[in-house]
Amino acid sequence: MEGKEPNAIDVGRAVGLTRPVRENDAGAGLGRLSLGEILPAFGGAKKARVAALLSNSPDKARVVAAQYGVRPDCIYSYDEWHRLAGNPEVAAVYVVTPNGMHREHVLAAAEAGKHVLCEKPMANTAAEAREMVVACDRAGVKLMVAYRCQYEPYNRRAIALVRSGRYGTARIIEACNTQVQGPAEQWRLRAALAGGGALPDIGLYCLNGARAYTGEDPVEVFARIWNPPGDERFATVEDTVAFMLRFPSGTIAQCSASYTAHESRDMRVRLGEAWLDVGNAFAYRGQSLRIARRVGDEEAMESPVIAHANQFALELDHFTDCIQTGRRPRTPGEEGVQDHVLMEAIYQPARSGRPVSLSAVPGRDAFRGPALDE
Amino acid sequence: MEGKEPNAIDVGRAVGLTRPVRENDAGAGLGRLSLGEILPAFGGAKKARVAALLSNSPDKARVVAAQYGVRPDCIYSYDEWHRLAGNPEVAAVYVVTPNGMHREHVLAAAEAGKHVLCEKPMANTAAEAREMVVACDRAGVKLMVAYRCQYEPYNRRAIALVRSGRYGTARIIEACNTQVQGPAEQWRLRAALAGGGALPDIGLYCLNGARAYTGEDPVEVFARIWNPPGDERFATVEDTVAFMLRFPSGTIAQCSASYTAHESRDMRVRLGEAWLDVGNAFAYRGQSLRIARRVGDEEAMESPVIAHANQFALELDHFTDCIQTGRRPRTPGEEGVQDHVLMEAIYQPARSGRPVSLSAVPGRDAFRGPALDE
Amino acid sequence: MEGKEPNAIDVGRAVGLTRPVRENDAGAGLGRLSLGEILPAFGGAKKARVAALLSNSPDKARVVAAQYGVRPDCIYSYDEWHRLAGNPEVAAVYVVTPNGMHREHVLAAAEAGKHVLCEKPMANTAAEAREMVVACDRAGVKLMVAYRCQYEPYNRRAIALVRSGRYGTARIIEACNTQVQGPAEQWRLRAALAGGGALPDIGLYCLNGARAYTGEDPVEVFARIWNPPGDERFATVEDTVAFMLRFPSGTIAQCSASYTAHESRDMRVRLGEAWLDVGNAFAYRGQSLRIARRVGDEEAMESPVIAHANQFALELDHFTDCIQTGRRPRTPGEEGVQDHVLMEAIYQPARSGRPVSLSAVPGRDAFRGPALDE
Amino acid sequence: MEGKEPNAIDVGRAVGLTRPVRENDAGAGLGRLSLGEILPAFGGAKKARVAALLSNSPDKARVVAAQYGVRPDCIYSYDEWHRLAGNPEVAAVYVVTPNGMHREHVLAAAEAGKHVLCEKPMANTAAEAREMVVACDRAGVKLMVAYRCQYEPYNRRAIALVRSGRYGTARIIEACNTQVQGPAEQWRLRAALAGGGALPDIGLYCLNGARAYTGEDPVEVFARIWNPPGDERFATVEDTVAFMLRFPSGTIAQCSASYTAHESRDMRVRLGEAWLDVGNAFAYRGQSLRIARRVGDEEAMESPVIAHANQFALELDHFTDCIQTGRRPRTPGEEGVQDHVLMEAIYQPARSGRPVSLSAVPGRDAFRGPALDE
Repeated sequence: MEGKEPNAIDVGRAVGLTRPVRENDAGAGLGRLSLGEILPAFGGAKKARVAALLSNSPDKARVVAAQYGVRPDCIYSYDEWHRLAGNPEVAAVYVVTPNGMHREHVLAAAEAGKHVLCEKPMANTAAEAREMVVACDRAGVKLMVAYRCQYEPYNRRAIALVRSGRYGTARIIEACNTQVQGPAEQWRLRAALAGGGALPDIGLYCLNGARAYTGEDPVEVFARIWNPPGDERFATVEDTVAFMLRFPSGTIAQCSASYTAHESRDMRVRLGEAWLDVGNAFAYRGQSLRIARRVGDEEAMESPVIAHANQFALELDHFTDCIQTGRRPRTPGEEGVQDHVLMEAIYQPARSGRPVSLSAVPGRDAFRGPALDE
Repeated sequence: MEGKEPNAIDVGRAVGLTRPVRENDAGAGLGRLSLGEILPAFGGAKKARVAALLSNSPDKARVVAAQYGVRPDCIYSYDEWHRLAGNPEVAAVYVVTPNGMHREHVLAAAEAGKHVLCEKPMANTAAEAREMVVACDRAGVKLMVAYRCQYEPYNRRAIALVRSGRYGTARIIEACNTQVQGPAEQWRLRAALAGGGALPDIGLYCLNGARAYTGEDPVEVFARIWNPPGDERFATVEDTVAFMLRFPSGTIAQCSASYTAHESRDMRVRLGEAWLDVGNAFAYRGQSLRIARRVGDEEAMESPVIAHANQFALELDHFTDCIQTGRRPRTPGEEGVQDHVLMEAIYQPARSGRPVSLSAVPGRDAFRGPALDE
Repeated sequence: MEGKEPNAIDVGRAVGLTRPVRENDAGAGLGRLSLGEILPAFGGAKKARVAALLSNSPDKARVVAAQYGVRPDCIYSYDEWHRLAGNPEVAAVYVVTPNGMHREHVLAAAEAGKHVLCEKPMANTAAEAREMVVACDRAGVKLMVAYRCQYEPYNRRAIALVRSGRYGTARIIEACNTQVQGPAEQWRLRAALAGGGALPDIGLYCLNGARAYTGEDPVEVFARIWNPPGDERFATVEDTVAFMLRFPSGTIAQCSASYTAHESRDMRVRLGEAWLDVGNAFAYRGQSLRIARRVGDEEAMESPVIAHANQFALELDHFTDCIQTGRRPRTPGEEGVQDHVLMEAIYQPARSGRPVSLSAVPGRDAFRGPALDE
Repeated sequence: MEGKEPNAIDVGRAVGLTRPVRENDAGAGLGRLSLGEILPAFGGAKKARVAALLSNSPDKARVVAAQYGVRPDCIYSYDEWHRLAGNPEVAAVYVVTPNGMHREHVLAAAEAGKHVLCEKPMANTAAEAREMVVACDRAGVKLMVAYRCQYEPYNRRAIALVRSGRYGTARIIEACNTQVQGPAEQWRLRAALAGGGALPDIGLYCLNGARAYTGEDPVEVFARIWNPPGDERFATVEDTVAFMLRFPSGTIAQCSASYTAHESRDMRVRLGEAWLDVGNAFAYRGQSLRIARRVGDEEAMESPVIAHANQFALELDHFTDCIQTGRRPRTPGEEGVQDHVLMEAIYQPARSGRPVSLSAVPGRDAFRGPALDE
């Protein structure tokens, strides 16, 4: 149906990709997100291509490299950042390692003079995240956090509708991101590698989503955490977190995330004259949008079918475009820092039982780069 | 499709109906809920019929009486409770007046020796509600609160599924009940008649729903209220309320209600092995149920089509059955008292900014009558 | 939500109801359609009430009469038409007997001077149907055929949209009405009582629907019948019928009905600039409407939520209104005659294997009364 | 979510791709299907990669080649089949040219010793299609027709369910494929290049779908064609075609296709104990499956969410697997020949007004290769 314009393909320089370390993959190498989503998504990217791989599993890396047309001499181990630095075909590095290693790899990439696209959560703490911003600034490289939902078309449409004022103001946001997390030995259930449990991994989508939909930052946070008694998976990280955010314009966001609830990834906004339901809002695919509103004197449900586009490809293209044009990414390092500040605030009432007030952040999109073109 | 068995029809005695007073109806008489829903629903009831009308608008009452086969001498004004008391055909009274008048009318009905079905919220305060329970006990009449969702088939199915344990335990409940409330002069926006704003009118469905689904009572409540600045409708009652309930078994309910958001009446439960989405959970009709779970090694969505039944008719038949058999209603006065206790608790953090802890209520369905037959 | 105006209630005269004879109900009396749908629907009717019952099962009739407020002396057996004739409270009779008895009962009602609402199919043959039209004309009473879908709001909306030209012209109509018909001994599987099998019982909805949606009458009919070998239920009536209708303006309708396929009752119209999907189009309830079209440069799905109304109540009110105002019903006897003419044409190619050409019927709604008010 | 195993990647030989000629693209080069769907889909293929391009637009081809990692010396013009023949990296050719050129390009590819995947419809006539089968047989190369729906997971699931007998037998199939075809000058509206109008282009999906779902071949065909008067687009090809197919086991398929109706691509099967609705059955993406059936004593709707997979990638992998293992494709040239035989039969009643009887084809999947692995 839709065609793709093959112009503006950057064939001279391209995006590299680090290797995810997944303990539960038994050292076998490239992780599920990279193999299942990111690498195939390059096929749909107009401006980016994969030019190199970073991996400590050379055999696996060779197979993947062959499949995706990466030259054998563009496979690097993690002690070869210097060699990567010397490869002029690699413009940027996409860091897809465990959260606790993001800081080290982002700093290494910056030192190598490469722009960096970093998976979310950006780091384990706000302090680490700030350090990464500073390092990239000093190195003169772009730092973008991979908040893919802000590039995904259904979320973008919903954000545009909420902000348009067409349906009045948002009173209530409900965001829920849950999944069943599997066995205890994986890195996501180890605080040192993951930086937390359901909150930074999946609750972050609710937090970042509520902020992106409203364009505001919260002035109050209340939260509660619950862990199933005796479940060893939650010895160092939280299972279920529910938090309520109050925004300056009155919107209240009710957010929930859990590692022990069947997969759900939905977001709903209750506005004065409509409600929006973004189905699979935080999932890799399968998004939908339902708009309930009055048409004439009757209730109607509308579901736009937005032209298909892979959200990872859009994210990669946006990042590449920022590199090519010098533009600031929509989700720069500062966006990630602010989420870490807020997650640290969320953990407080979960412990103390008292809500936390936050200074109002003036303006809209205070931590973001320029709006994306429609 | 479905047939109806005409046996067990109570043709000797029946349920009367009080007249709703609606200021915004300019004294025109019988209110929207009675005329649009309750009276037509008697057509689908197997055990109850309308035998009398209470109204201060005799002309309107005569027309309605003719339409529904009520004898002209069975129309009563509000100073004729004594005459009503003497009518042996009237077994019970359904109080559908403004909240602030429930206490007076329930007490009058009890004094007249009639059983009472009282619309929700039961009263304006927990103290009033307790007084009504005592009065009906003393008079030896049944008191039931019209929590119709506990009789509505889709909610009942969802409740049964949550409690069955088939899908593990409930981690998160999201309940949202919003509507656009219209002009300032209506009784629902006057604290003296309504007892509050969005919370007792529509937020109560979220509260009662979360309690009914889990069968538990909350041990902690946090809440926030927001009123649109300068909107005269919210001079004495609240517009938007969001509250978080923590239940003993770990379930957290995120509840929201608003008088300035487009109509939505949804309830979702996130369990360990499924999520349930009850569409139009709190509406007069149009309920649906979606169950997302894994079947084999894939995700599936199931939507049972439950045999049609009017929820008002089911409620009326349950009440009539309790009268006939002496059974305690599933939603007796005590159920309404407990919701008033909790609503008073919810208003506290909304003012103080600090969550309120509540004593654990032991057991399941602590304030309810016996479970309904399947 | 929606209120109902109690004005214009006809309290002086009302609609009676004949008793369905259902062999498979073992003489127990009033049938499923009457008890499950029509009698409860009177509760939602604004202009009609049930004033009498016709039945040969006096015990059952007395119970039903008590439930619906019918006076005991207004229960008639089938040899008491003369007594019914003398009851001035009965303005009309709704004939809900087996198809093969419609003619006799319509003629009796006409002779008794009562207007007649006759269930579909009107009769067993076009000749019978014509005789009924003539008899009612001579008796000066109205004859309406209970094509309830033409009064049901979702179908009416779809009809209005198709005819508006807003979405261009209809190219294809797909209509499917299937159900699993149960054991052999019921009257619907006996040609003498039913007049045919799936075609007159459920395929008629597809035929009448295609005619009502377009407003046209077909100029060519092709059809095929299939019966499962050895199934005794289909000894005298057909199981599955598929037919193709060509309309003068080019629309082609693909219609299917079966007694051995899981229940489905859908209708879809493929127009130049939209398609309409009327879900549960022919069912007693649960209708929906999906409109797929382009909005701007993208595909969108719209689902209006049309204000709830019981289709049987609307049908009864329309008929009562025609009696009160002298207006011709939208679906008079002539509409039923034409469907019988067409069903006889449909049986021909099913036998001969050759399509049948029909004379073009000029104009729109050639056999119908005035359009319903919006 | 799902990972992809990078084993078994054929890195030594791969699939080439011919250039679509599209008159309405003004010689601009590679067509919409190739650029928008097939080339990006290689990213998701496990066994196939694009190794060469055939094109007469060298500039455009160079840009595309760079984007997809095709070496510059692997771009061929249409008079360089001999040079392509000498490229050992190219194992096969995917012919995506206008229908009327399929025969020439398939014969050229076979002569060059390359296996051929040919877009549907296979040719302009059954005679051409047979010639292509013979040529590939003689050259010892595989010939597969790109009936992608037979590889697409939702259609495959529906086919498996229909054939499983779990829901009884199929009584009715409704298949509809419509779109608005655009201006007159495109090749699809020119009989010489397209071989026909809506029938071979989109109606073929209904025909092939009905055959694939049942596994049978029809014994009778009836059809009607309608062209909008005065529309120059339909001077040489048909606009709207409706056809009825009778299958040996009693299933009747009602099929419709139109070039002047809003896009719809649905398929429904009415079985004894369920109905299946395959949404977007024939589209590039967005498939869904609804299964309506009884569960216990109530109606239920089920929607499996089948693991995502690009249907073009699956098709390419199946074809590659057949090349590697010597297996016969599921949809070999013979499958395409049979559809041409049937389309020629469909055109007959459209002209003569009389159904056409066909000899029964014994067995299931008479023209197909072995069933796909589950």
